[in-house]
Amino acid sequence: MELRQIYAPVQEDLNRVRDTLESISHVDFDWLSKQLHYVLKETGKGIRPALTLLSGKSYKYDFTYLLPMAVSVELMHTSTLVHDDAIDKALTRRGQATINSIWGDEIAILMGDYLFAKAGEFVADTQTPRVIKLFSQTLGTISSGEIGQFRGAYKLDQSRENYFHRIYSKTASLFSLSTQSGAILSKAPEESVTVMKDYGDNLGIAFQIVDDILDFTSTEEALGKPVGSDLTQGTLTLPAMLLMERYPDDNPVKRLFETGDKTNVSQAIEMVLNSKIIDDSYKIASEYCERACKNLKTLPDTASRKALHDLANFVVKQGK
Amino acid sequence: MELRQIYAPVQEDLNRVRDTLESISHVDFDWLSKQLHYVLKETGKGIRPALTLLSGKSYKYDFTYLLPMAVSVELMHTSTLVHDDAIDKALTRRGQATINSIWGDEIAILMGDYLFAKAGEFVADTQTPRVIKLFSQTLGTISSGEIGQFRGAYKLDQSRENYFHRIYSKTASLFSLSTQSGAILSKAPEESVTVMKDYGDNLGIAFQIVDDILDFTSTEEALGKPVGSDLTQGTLTLPAMLLMERYPDDNPVKRLFETGDKTNVSQAIEMVLNSKIIDDSYKIASEYCERACKNLKTLPDTASRKALHDLANFVVKQGK
Repeated sequence: MELRQIYAPVQEDLNRVRDTLESISHVDFDWLSKQLHYVLKETGKGIRPALTLLSGKSYKYDFTYLLPMAVSVELMHTSTLVHDDAIDKALTRRGQATINSIWGDEIAILMGDYLFAKAGEFVADTQTPRVIKLFSQTLGTISSGEIGQFRGAYKLDQSRENYFHRIYSKTASLFSLSTQSGAILSKAPEESVTVMKDYGDNLGIAFQIVDDILDFTSTEEALGKPVGSDLTQGTLTLPAMLLMERYPDDNPVKRLFETGDKTNVSQAIEMVLNSKIIDDSYKIASEYCERACKNLKTLPDTASRKALHDLANFVVKQGK
Repeated sequence: MELRQIYAPVQEDLNRVRDTLESISHVDFDWLSKQLHYVLKETGKGIRPALTLLSGKSYKYDFTYLLPMAVSVELMHTSTLVHDDAIDKALTRRGQATINSIWGDEIAILMGDYLFAKAGEFVADTQTPRVIKLFSQTLGTISSGEIGQFRGAYKLDQSRENYFHRIYSKTASLFSLSTQSGAILSKAPEESVTVMKDYGDNLGIAFQIVDDILDFTSTEEALGKPVGSDLTQGTLTLPAMLLMERYPDDNPVKRLFETGDKTNVSQAIEMVLNSKIIDDSYKIASEYCERACKNLKTLPDTASRKALHDLANFVVKQGK
């Protein structure tokens, strides 16, 4: 099943989200306009705004508030990517040159701030202090998580618990904001808001595990950035952790982190691909997806509920 | 008159603002806690939170909402300074080493983001979508202004209009948010919100002009950073512009911007100090202060209205 089919119940409204994102680049200041257009034209799969709209469909769907919410989650995502790329000194993202690589770190910092500000303007348009507060808390979780990741780079003594906490902060927290806000803004009962929160939390973790798997199994063309980027940046992901667990005495991840010798990156990838590690990682991702979907059946039986199920299945099948 | 005396009508509540800012550093993650403590312990004059509280005093003063608002304007200010210092590669601020100089640009980016997020959480606690939207618009104005300033660095063909637009964006917009939000949250009538907006806009411009003057006339000890920093960073401020206007054919600012030769910085400072430029700059700042205060008389006659007057006088007398 393709994303296009899964998004069907909200496709028309997703197009309006895209149009609104595009309209943000229409500002008086020519140069800023050019940069904004550049950063907003490649918006990836749009999974976060889709989550907001689909989560809103089970109850009193009100696009007046769901539109700015969906725009704001995508903008927050984009702004964190712009800052992350500056921090990681990344050269490419989604197959195109990063802001920092074209215009420098200074512009990347300011452009990220500008996008945060725009995200804040849109979330204010929901007129709903509860989701506005959640929005800011999520940004706090993401940035403190990034601080943790940056501080933990090239460190080997990290537990799985630490890994799950890290990917919750960097990815699942925003998935969770996307689903919860959709539920809250469509006046879902509290039990359903909790169901959507759990869905977002668990789907986000599954999504990030698969993203971490793809960093080993995919191609530069499909990823839009070099394979093995996580290892190169000293980020210990689940496949690398499983390798460490299975060959604790000596392995290329350990050598890479201890010596900084980058030739170990391709050795680590090869070793992971020649083991059962990828299968095992997918299994763990699938468990999170099952948890995500567990209580969806308590929501009204609608096309959007089915879409949320299908989306979870789509997420754990990427790259398989 | 000292700030302590001017702040008297709200001094007790300002202490609670300070306590709340201090409490933000109490987080589970030790290392983050240490950094937050470092960045929040030196909060400068606290002029922005004072503006919010004083602006709230003329009408239905409600500290439940004014406290988080005052905290959020100070946090937004702090977060923009953290990012600015990373962009400018500044080594000292308020007499202490900058975040970027101690922990690197990466941590400065993430720490700034974290402080934005906290500012957003506090502003959400005002439960007032109008000020929340203003808050985000202000952050957008500040960051697009900084982009303009960064792009305009070392450029000589800048009009005075451009300068006033720039300092409105970087400073006055946040002063204006501080005063307007105080008025809105204390349920001031719309005419009074406009009066407080005009006050904030004009006071902010006066404040920044004086700040730009002090970069020429003050000492490193008093500034907490090197004298002449603006020129070193290629930022054309009012005194430098007046020098350019008076000696259009050849002057050290022109030579500095054209050749990058930093020996021109001290020559430019000397030339400005030996001219009437400082007096003329103060005169322009005073005009903005008068405009700021012009309509204050339409507000109820209270101690806080007097304090706003006194604060304007204080601002244009700094360094005199």
